[in-house]
Amino acid sequence: MLKGHQTWVFASKPVIRSASAIGGPFEAKGPIAEDFDTLHSDLMIGQDSWEKAERTLLEEACDKAIEKAGLTKETINFFLSGDLMNQIVSSSFGARTLTIPFLGLFGACSTSMEGLALAALMVDSQSAEYVLAATCSHNASAEKQYRYPTEYGSQKPPTAQWTATASGAAVVSANGEGLRVTSATIGRVVDMGLKDPFNMGGAMAPAALNTIEAHFRDRQLPYDYYDLVVTGDLGRVGHSILSELLPKHQIEIPLDRYQDCGIILYGDNPDVWSGASGCGCSAAVTYGHLLRKMKEGTWKKILVVATGALLSPLSYQQGESIPCIAHAVSIETE
Amino acid sequence: MLKGHQTWVFASKPVIRSASAIGGPFEAKGPIAEDFDTLHSDLMIGQDSWEKAERTLLEEACDKAIEKAGLTKETINFFLSGDLMNQIVSSSFGARTLTIPFLGLFGACSTSMEGLALAALMVDSQSAEYVLAATCSHNASAEKQYRYPTEYGSQKPPTAQWTATASGAAVVSANGEGLRVTSATIGRVVDMGLKDPFNMGGAMAPAALNTIEAHFRDRQLPYDYYDLVVTGDLGRVGHSILSELLPKHQIEIPLDRYQDCGIILYGDNPDVWSGASGCGCSAAVTYGHLLRKMKEGTWKKILVVATGALLSPLSYQQGESIPCIAHAVSIETE
Repeated sequence: MLKGHQTWVFASKPVIRSASAIGGPFEAKGPIAEDFDTLHSDLMIGQDSWEKAERTLLEEACDKAIEKAGLTKETINFFLSGDLMNQIVSSSFGARTLTIPFLGLFGACSTSMEGLALAALMVDSQSAEYVLAATCSHNASAEKQYRYPTEYGSQKPPTAQWTATASGAAVVSANGEGLRVTSATIGRVVDMGLKDPFNMGGAMAPAALNTIEAHFRDRQLPYDYYDLVVTGDLGRVGHSILSELLPKHQIEIPLDRYQDCGIILYGDNPDVWSGASGCGCSAAVTYGHLLRKMKEGTWKKILVVATGALLSPLSYQQGESIPCIAHAVSIETE
Repeated sequence: MLKGHQTWVFASKPVIRSASAIGGPFEAKGPIAEDFDTLHSDLMIGQDSWEKAERTLLEEACDKAIEKAGLTKETINFFLSGDLMNQIVSSSFGARTLTIPFLGLFGACSTSMEGLALAALMVDSQSAEYVLAATCSHNASAEKQYRYPTEYGSQKPPTAQWTATASGAAVVSANGEGLRVTSATIGRVVDMGLKDPFNMGGAMAPAALNTIEAHFRDRQLPYDYYDLVVTGDLGRVGHSILSELLPKHQIEIPLDRYQDCGIILYGDNPDVWSGASGCGCSAAVTYGHLLRKMKEGTWKKILVVATGALLSPLSYQQGESIPCIAHAVSIETE
């Protein structure tokens, strides 16, 4: 790897052998509802706490991905997962159920592509035959942990986002049929000094810019190489900021080819303010919606740039600004 | 990789080009004080919060490891780090300061070896030239987050452990002089149903057993292959349990070659109850003490089995048992 480079190009092009998306009742009303494998009508997912509901989403997504791959959990070498809960308990308890050797990750909402990047690295380097990468989030568990009790009915500004109740998982393998992971760019932490946790799209947009810039530089690709560049969960506010920043930085990605998972998941619904967020957002949109459209031929090459705001409620309370990151993974048709 | 296997054997034997250990005032009174690069006399590390103190420890450990490697941060391809704080803010804010492309990890006190294993994988697969792996913990930030306000003066049972105020970092590279990372075994989550967060050594011992068993099985090594097998932070209670479990499971590691970082760090000090714990414990003991003894020739081959209790205060309050994990990395003289 060249000095200063931060992109892995996977010579063997690992296969996304299967992928799954599980959602909640609110996701079931959205424009991409048909792209979920399972949609729950009950926000509690049959459990007695929001945290157990979130964990159940993750376990269902993992089970579904393994089943769709035609595998059993015993054949999966490693499970890579992270989530927003303190000490990533959704993932750790999910790993207990799965009993697959487990590497816990934390990249906030960038975890989806952090996991996919590492899964592809392991398969490409023949360090694993099958790797399961997953992540999840739950609207109510996130509100409870990060913000106010929902019973309090606090109002939010239009820059706020709605944490998705969703989970997405993928099985990456050295062989088989499917779309291929061709490269991954690991992001740096970028912090432009923003301190408002109700404007995470604004805070994260510069991190997405930084990673996109690094990706095209490292791979030396023309800016119109991808049919679609999609950010993780910048929402309408962040999408609009990044749409301005890209041309200002001479990154001439055709703006009609730039979308955001945080807008795709709920469409124009004004109830979600700026759009969707949460680890489950980019995971479910990518593994459900985007891969389906790729299989249908809408796009042949996409770059998924999952964004994460690495704050904690405590770092915010102590007056810190929001450190942000983005990891990018390219997925291409054979 | 064979089905059911969970061990990477690194053909190129990546080099631990440098390593560092930073500690606090309590660590300065311990038996391995001379093995730290820096020992702070002030528990606040000159900061105005415990959280910033912890982050500063991490940043110092990283700076010191990079300096000792004769490198600059611009030459490091990736930074792998995690910690115990909610949303691993010590690591994320440290990554903001370092500006090295960052992968956030969470494995509780197993994070030290999770990071070293992934760093070695990246170097071995030529996916990086230099990788920095680090972790940290701080006694007061951990007490604040996980337990009671220290001002409350709550008593603890003899099975409890003392979270280390320490950080350890290592630079792994494809070339150069130094000890070598020869293999790594990624652990499964093991949960024997224990629910007492004041007996994490007891909870984690079966996870260590599981990973040690997998390591020797996957590598097909004789049980006396290593000069030292050292667990991360089982403390006296967990060390004693594992010393009983190993022969019961026909894992005939000579028990005089089995030690625990949680005992090494503070020796016989009764003030720490069962011993040390925290992400910084196995990191500082390994990167400070153990590597020094290896360089001096005391041991030629060691296996570091870092253990982690993957609970959260909330999972405990909700009546869950403690999911545990252990990751093992072998370090050998050339």
